[in-house]
Amino acid sequence: MTERINRQWRLAARPVGRFKDSDFKWTTEAVPQLKDGELLVHNRYLSLDPTNRGWANEIDTYLPAVRLGDVMRGGAIGEVEESRNPNYKPGDFVSGLLGWQEYAITNGTGISKLPNIPGVPMTAHLGLFGHIGLTAYYGLLDVGQPKAGETLVVSAAAGAVGSLVGQIGKIVGCRVVGIAGSDEKCRWLTEDLGFDATINYKKEKISEGLKRTCPKGIDVDFENVGGEILDAVLAQINLGARISLCGMISQYNATEPVPGPYNLVMLVVRRARIQGFLVSDYMDRAAEAMTALGRWLMEGKIKYRVDIVEGLEEAPRAVNKLFEGSNTGKLVVKI
Amino acid sequence: MTERINRQWRLAARPVGRFKDSDFKWTTEAVPQLKDGELLVHNRYLSLDPTNRGWANEIDTYLPAVRLGDVMRGGAIGEVEESRNPNYKPGDFVSGLLGWQEYAITNGTGISKLPNIPGVPMTAHLGLFGHIGLTAYYGLLDVGQPKAGETLVVSAAAGAVGSLVGQIGKIVGCRVVGIAGSDEKCRWLTEDLGFDATINYKKEKISEGLKRTCPKGIDVDFENVGGEILDAVLAQINLGARISLCGMISQYNATEPVPGPYNLVMLVVRRARIQGFLVSDYMDRAAEAMTALGRWLMEGKIKYRVDIVEGLEEAPRAVNKLFEGSNTGKLVVKI
Repeated sequence: MTERINRQWRLAARPVGRFKDSDFKWTTEAVPQLKDGELLVHNRYLSLDPTNRGWANEIDTYLPAVRLGDVMRGGAIGEVEESRNPNYKPGDFVSGLLGWQEYAITNGTGISKLPNIPGVPMTAHLGLFGHIGLTAYYGLLDVGQPKAGETLVVSAAAGAVGSLVGQIGKIVGCRVVGIAGSDEKCRWLTEDLGFDATINYKKEKISEGLKRTCPKGIDVDFENVGGEILDAVLAQINLGARISLCGMISQYNATEPVPGPYNLVMLVVRRARIQGFLVSDYMDRAAEAMTALGRWLMEGKIKYRVDIVEGLEEAPRAVNKLFEGSNTGKLVVKI
Repeated sequence: MTERINRQWRLAARPVGRFKDSDFKWTTEAVPQLKDGELLVHNRYLSLDPTNRGWANEIDTYLPAVRLGDVMRGGAIGEVEESRNPNYKPGDFVSGLLGWQEYAITNGTGISKLPNIPGVPMTAHLGLFGHIGLTAYYGLLDVGQPKAGETLVVSAAAGAVGSLVGQIGKIVGCRVVGIAGSDEKCRWLTEDLGFDATINYKKEKISEGLKRTCPKGIDVDFENVGGEILDAVLAQINLGARISLCGMISQYNATEPVPGPYNLVMLVVRRARIQGFLVSDYMDRAAEAMTALGRWLMEGKIKYRVDIVEGLEEAPRAVNKLFEGSNTGKLVVKI
């Protein structure tokens, strides 16, 4: 066996605000021998997601905080190169929290084998057929409960999740309004993805944009952002509205406590709800979502795009594209 | 027909912070002749509720704002003295939004006739068998969905609604923790009403009190207060927790926008929800709640108390007891 060298990004400091280069340390080390039950994965694509920022804080969230000095946690897909685990053989492709590194050794816990779907590129397993697709599908349909004819608002609408949510909303028969941060993104949403209307929050006050685009009020809000957007949405919700709380990207880099919506009492006035969810709770129902998403993709009813950054070295800088809003589609690093 | 003189409190100014005497104007006027379809009600008891404060603001809520110069809106019960409406006859007792006045003329819309329940005092129809009982019953059972063995937190626990919520929670089999503002109230909750534990928020930090009293975390929160309490609750909710949002009394007198909970992202981390409700949505299901509450009352499983203030003249000052927390039980004015 030739000796392999692993290249890794380790968490070196707790970030304050957005990630800085100095929050990570680039290390190299020899890949150790496998023990019984382990497999060696050569990572091919690393998924960058807003939730990465939360994992780097000192406080545990839905997963334990990444410890200082550990390899940074991240979803990835890779190819099995060696295996002492009977469930995997060299050449299998797998996905899981394989980390910001070139090689990962795992005993298979939390890892899943990728099906070989003709015509579907490998990166789709980090997006449409991965946690992104599941998040959009169940976060909208199960938590948001949209009905035909209702008005759906999607924040971070040009993001990987938001762009899928809006398209699923159209399939369900909703009027879909997307909030995004550039005219180019807004054009993509309406012209390519079929959104009914958009708000460029850098050019228009969100509350005024919502009045303009949601003349019948808001029935469902798929909320990725929080902050000012959530407040503006709450002011215009209809009776029985549902806010599906996917995340609050506006807060992930905050260095001081961020107040919640000033308009929360609107939940009482409009008998409405805010409900949080995590995609991990829907893993046992993944097949249903994958089947539907695959069918819609084949039928041309949904489109998605991937923003590929070349080189593991770029990961610490690339991840901030999510918070600048400068990525176009699912952000991945080609390792 | 002898001429009757009506004594009334009219809204004279939009309150800033708590109600002041000068926000109301005391007027007297002759009661006019009834028209066809109308009835004349001699009000006996006026209900004072936290929501009164919101009605006095310029902004419409779930009901239109009370207009300056109009008789202040309020729930009341009274006796029909004259009727030109075939559905009512003199001697009937009715309840509805009859206003802060001695006499009300109505065409019967939104008014309901009170059943004569032996052994139940008239004031119970403003409390246990009125909107208070319905709010507690459906706000807890329908919105909060408590299960036996779960931990239920009730804010404003010594209030009219909160004290019922806690007792219903015990009937359902929950561990019940009440938050109140004096040792006397806390004693009443544990010794008389059977709450498992209490937090006197004037003596103990709420987050520490919750840690002390909810060692297994919080499954259901019946939230009357909002603000700091809601933040502290969110920090300690369990997976799948439900927050039933009844009101946010901490904000009703605010003169500046009040931020929502800083911890809202906990809804995502814990896959939890905040759901608002209004008792008016449950009016068509009132019979179920009244039957259950009546049975529990007879069985000695629930107790309630009424805080009676004498004299309509006192209403503007008495209503602030709700915001000072100085009332003990359902606050009513005997007219």
